[in-house]
Amino acid sequence: MNSVYVVGIGPGGRDQMTREAETALERCSVIAGYTVYIDLIKDRYADKTFLTTPMTQEAKRCQMAFEEAQKGRDVCIVCSGDAGVYGMAGLMYEIKESYPDVDIKVVPGITAATGGAAVLGAPLMHDFAVISLSDLLTPWEKIEARLRAAAAADFVICLYNPSSRKRKGYLEKACGLLLEYKSKDTVCGIVRNIGREGESCQVLSLEELKQTKADMFTTVYIGNEQTRQIEGSMVTPRGYRDV
Amino acid sequence: MNSVYVVGIGPGGRDQMTREAETALERCSVIAGYTVYIDLIKDRYADKTFLTTPMTQEAKRCQMAFEEAQKGRDVCIVCSGDAGVYGMAGLMYEIKESYPDVDIKVVPGITAATGGAAVLGAPLMHDFAVISLSDLLTPWEKIEARLRAAAAADFVICLYNPSSRKRKGYLEKACGLLLEYKSKDTVCGIVRNIGREGESCQVLSLEELKQTKADMFTTVYIGNEQTRQIEGSMVTPRGYRDV
Repeated sequence: MNSVYVVGIGPGGRDQMTREAETALERCSVIAGYTVYIDLIKDRYADKTFLTTPMTQEAKRCQMAFEEAQKGRDVCIVCSGDAGVYGMAGLMYEIKESYPDVDIKVVPGITAATGGAAVLGAPLMHDFAVISLSDLLTPWEKIEARLRAAAAADFVICLYNPSSRKRKGYLEKACGLLLEYKSKDTVCGIVRNIGREGESCQVLSLEELKQTKADMFTTVYIGNEQTRQIEGSMVTPRGYRDV
Repeated sequence: MNSVYVVGIGPGGRDQMTREAETALERCSVIAGYTVYIDLIKDRYADKTFLTTPMTQEAKRCQMAFEEAQKGRDVCIVCSGDAGVYGMAGLMYEIKESYPDVDIKVVPGITAATGGAAVLGAPLMHDFAVISLSDLLTPWEKIEARLRAAAAADFVICLYNPSSRKRKGYLEKACGLLLEYKSKDTVCGIVRNIGREGESCQVLSLEELKQTKADMFTTVYIGNEQTRQIEGSMVTPRGYRDV
């Protein structure tokens, strides 16, 4: 049976790809993906056929990948980070129902949550919730309910898609909600361009985070009650030894 | 300044390590870690000095790593999965305060949540919460509050440490709580020995999961309202197109 490999290429740098992902990309003849991610790897795989579609045409991208696989070609579809975290893996399975003779293999990658955590220190050492602030496919009421639940139960929170050109002010709105439950001094962190040129990070309070601008290449962390700053790093202790 | 690299080696297989992790291990002369993880990589790095401590002596392991680095040796401390998710990164920062002349660099790895998700299909495609059922360092009341919050807000839930010899019945207890909020038909999944010999997975209902035995090498997934089974895989759609 023909397979399509759904490959997470990690945050950006080649060093943060797994060997399994590298091998899948080397072996295939066709690589499909969003234009921006293809540009990250194109130079390394000059002999491949590339199939790109813009951001809103994810379903078409999946169909193109399946159709190439049906023709007997070895196909990878690439995502930044991990293909299974707000990536293409789910949509591939949904569309697979029309291509019963093609198999899917998901190759995991370093997702922004853990890639960015490593830049900041160790913010995700205890129970955490990952929430996307994008309301393109999810009603804001659902996002708000999750922010409230995660804050009330003292999860460390990691925010994906904190902002975009069309969604200015979402991070500020989210921080406003979290401040109903959490101290304004809660230790937070932001990381920009994880593993890419211009990587930068900042540790700050929840109150300061509320006034901070984020873009779509930013990942945001809000600490739990125990998170603290140690020599400029954001660190959540693993347990509650003193409780 | 001397550095200790805190390296996540991924779920187990060499193929699931990043090149950055491989490079750090190749360059260092001392590798510290929990006995079981050192055994996973010992054959590949025969020329290194290994420092191992058993499971309860994590602090001692960190101190040993810092002391070797202070002597000017290149040191890695390894964790399975990602060092920043229930791993050693946090404790390293806490202990670092006694070793001001040693620097920490965290090298991220594939954590069980995303490694296991790739085996099951695409369960973590939407907002998710990661919760450890271990109450060694966390009061059960806190764990229970997080389970309830995550279930009520319809997060996909990923459970680490679902059981151990001393904590039999914790997974059953957790499922019982979740059943107060979620349908008994909620699509769930378990993965055993991710990326290692004997890897296996199963997709099942929440009611069936409640009656399932897990061990410490098992990672558990509880779907959200939209999670479904597609040709034997566990898949959460990315958005709420029909809402």
